[in-house]
Amino acid sequence: MSKKVPYRLYLTEEQMPKQWYNLRADMKNKPEPMLNPGTMKPVTVEDICPVFCEELAKQELDNQTRYFNIPEEIQEFYKVYRPSPLIRAYNLEKFLDTPAKIYFKFEGNNTSGSHKLNSAIAQAYYAKKQGLTGLTTETGAGQWGTALAEACAYYKIPLTVYMVKCSYEQKPFRKLVMQTFDAEVIPSPSDTTHIGKMILDADPQSGGSLGCAISEAVEKAVTTPGYRYVLGSVLNQVLLHQSIIGLESKIAMEMLDEYPDIIIGCAGGGSNLGGLIAPFMQDKLLGKKNPRVIAVEPASCPSFTRGRYAYDFCDTGKVTPLAKMYTLGSGFIPSPNHAGGLRYHGMSPILSKLYHDGYMEAVSVEQTNVFDAAVLFAKQESILPAPESAHAIRTAIDEALKCKESGEAKTILFGLTGTGYFDMSAYGAYHDGTMTDYLPNDDQLAEGFNSLPKLPGIQE
Amino acid sequence: MSKKVPYRLYLTEEQMPKQWYNLRADMKNKPEPMLNPGTMKPVTVEDICPVFCEELAKQELDNQTRYFNIPEEIQEFYKVYRPSPLIRAYNLEKFLDTPAKIYFKFEGNNTSGSHKLNSAIAQAYYAKKQGLTGLTTETGAGQWGTALAEACAYYKIPLTVYMVKCSYEQKPFRKLVMQTFDAEVIPSPSDTTHIGKMILDADPQSGGSLGCAISEAVEKAVTTPGYRYVLGSVLNQVLLHQSIIGLESKIAMEMLDEYPDIIIGCAGGGSNLGGLIAPFMQDKLLGKKNPRVIAVEPASCPSFTRGRYAYDFCDTGKVTPLAKMYTLGSGFIPSPNHAGGLRYHGMSPILSKLYHDGYMEAVSVEQTNVFDAAVLFAKQESILPAPESAHAIRTAIDEALKCKESGEAKTILFGLTGTGYFDMSAYGAYHDGTMTDYLPNDDQLAEGFNSLPKLPGIQE
Repeated sequence: MSKKVPYRLYLTEEQMPKQWYNLRADMKNKPEPMLNPGTMKPVTVEDICPVFCEELAKQELDNQTRYFNIPEEIQEFYKVYRPSPLIRAYNLEKFLDTPAKIYFKFEGNNTSGSHKLNSAIAQAYYAKKQGLTGLTTETGAGQWGTALAEACAYYKIPLTVYMVKCSYEQKPFRKLVMQTFDAEVIPSPSDTTHIGKMILDADPQSGGSLGCAISEAVEKAVTTPGYRYVLGSVLNQVLLHQSIIGLESKIAMEMLDEYPDIIIGCAGGGSNLGGLIAPFMQDKLLGKKNPRVIAVEPASCPSFTRGRYAYDFCDTGKVTPLAKMYTLGSGFIPSPNHAGGLRYHGMSPILSKLYHDGYMEAVSVEQTNVFDAAVLFAKQESILPAPESAHAIRTAIDEALKCKESGEAKTILFGLTGTGYFDMSAYGAYHDGTMTDYLPNDDQLAEGFNSLPKLPGIQE
Repeated sequence: MSKKVPYRLYLTEEQMPKQWYNLRADMKNKPEPMLNPGTMKPVTVEDICPVFCEELAKQELDNQTRYFNIPEEIQEFYKVYRPSPLIRAYNLEKFLDTPAKIYFKFEGNNTSGSHKLNSAIAQAYYAKKQGLTGLTTETGAGQWGTALAEACAYYKIPLTVYMVKCSYEQKPFRKLVMQTFDAEVIPSPSDTTHIGKMILDADPQSGGSLGCAISEAVEKAVTTPGYRYVLGSVLNQVLLHQSIIGLESKIAMEMLDEYPDIIIGCAGGGSNLGGLIAPFMQDKLLGKKNPRVIAVEPASCPSFTRGRYAYDFCDTGKVTPLAKMYTLGSGFIPSPNHAGGLRYHGMSPILSKLYHDGYMEAVSVEQTNVFDAAVLFAKQESILPAPESAHAIRTAIDEALKCKESGEAKTILFGLTGTGYFDMSAYGAYHDGTMTDYLPNDDQLAEGFNSLPKLPGIQE
């Protein structure tokens, strides 16, 4: 029974990466620049400094610097909950009876329950360093809000979280975790902002959306002296910080003399996927290796597979800069029956460009299939996955089963971003058979696309 | 900032223990034997085999064998979620400004959320090996039920869990986790057993108790062909399996050239405490070392500090053998305002004997103090602790603060048994100020003691 590859491989502190990797530096075709919606010119650091910390604004716009040193204080905090293990899914392999080798990088063993803490601590650190007096953000399911609350508690920075109202009401426990870490949690839309009041005037019963919560958080940040806004996905800076996931994975796989043939990650805004694939995509961009890279998204919010590559606002209130990305339109709101997270209308501009240029594939999966995979995985690997993460499990299982058919012993690496302890209502719906699938029809997609901005000379 | 001792130390698979350690073998004064309530004679393996698996019955009664080989199949499963890290609480030390060095063994990074999986997988394995067709158990807060459901799903053994009714209703998410792992969960008292019906007849609104759920689970096991009953604490076999916690801790501390001056664990039935202290207590029993060992229990269920060392039933229905232990009486039910777990009326007979013979200390703490410590710890170490575990944190902090006063750089080791993700209602009560403390008064204790059995010639 003794096996050469351990179930769980943890790097030592000495082996942990000391730098983040900036994927853009190795892209010959850079992502399209963000545009200032006032001038229609590429945004400058000065343009976005009223919203973001200065250091983060620089990281956001830096297409050239290949590696950024991780400040020592952040390295110290990383050691509090990292490294995360690279796990060989022996039991799953055995159950599937596949010749494939399945590895996963497990980012869920921290109180935020996901990889989000990797960027949260970085953003809180730079805010502290700049002497800011507070931060605002939005959260949907609550992973990002929890992660940022933890980070802000550590640096003693006041934090206001706008939480999508339907999540706030359905997931009171996430809210209590954030409050344990001293965050102020406000259901969005709220009457604490101009945009929130407008939305409430139009629909007093509004359950909110991520785009709307972003608008409120940004407004609050720019109207409160000493405050800035932070975001947990989509942005280039976030993918930079999340590269720690891929860098650790690559070191661990090298120790095992392995290299993935297929890399799979779930994709909402792209923070996990972009981080996981970063150093492997570098190999691909430099022509050193050629792994398949697969983004997995929910069929009910299919930005890659059914969206458009277009300039769009990052929020519903249309107050953010414009980003060129795969998007369903900032007016698109996924069906309420969708329980699996990953409900953002757009996608990281970096990943969008890579997908557009053919470096990545994307698939969409339906949520009952996703929960089938989640439950199967839980029983084999004794980890209850977050619904988001289970999207990647679904596709990893599908690829492993293809290997069974073809007899190929491929090496699969997927990202297990988090745990599902706060998603038990969704599991309950799955168990009692009330969970349904949902495919937006063409009319519904067209409505979302109608919300795309018309930009004379840029896009019609 | 670089430190010699890492934040988190993980053993390699090769370093993981291959044997459990049986503390009783090194006790000169053995724990008093369990008695058959019919004959008042010490129970035999034959007596308890109708209730327990044969292998576990042998472990239960074996006072002599020092080490038990961990079957290879169990070692393999341990590798799926172990080793658990030994963590240096640098941030907590800094916050407290103490010269003490604080270490904790963190058992919460698995889907059961606690150390309970260590014994669950062993018990399920032996049940499978014996060809049993099903298992029954009880669960209060749900950690044990979840752990056993995971283990039974892995070995494909049907499991029926009697869950204390008030927990079943207050903690629907735990129930859903168990169902994800295919367990049948029945709120107790129920009409599926004779004893459950009796209790419901007497009080149709009964919210249940652990002692009552045990009675139902035992009855179901002995009346269903091929079924046996398993228990997650109190029993000698459970402490044996849980010795993995202490054995791993000791190896890790030796690697750091450390030895604890003080070892602290929370104590409900004693499974975590008994496991954590096992190899250190061995040193103490053999006169090699003399660490202080502190059991921490809730003031509202104070079996060590206010209980009696007496023979008592392990359940409310009085169907189990009699165990000599510190107990509040099987009729004692903690106040409903008690949110912090550790609500069992008795205590492991091994730990009871050690405490009685002066090898251990015990303290009781009130729950608002416990939650103060939990929240402080969460903010410093970024782990949201289970209320049970926070009892140990409270005392570890108190001891570290004493070191601050005295200027002594003592080495403290405590057990962090689990995470609090399913206990957010209790955190909510703490945050909104509705959490109260509760000290049973002497009359209430006397009522519990009245339920102790009168055993002519043994105890009056």
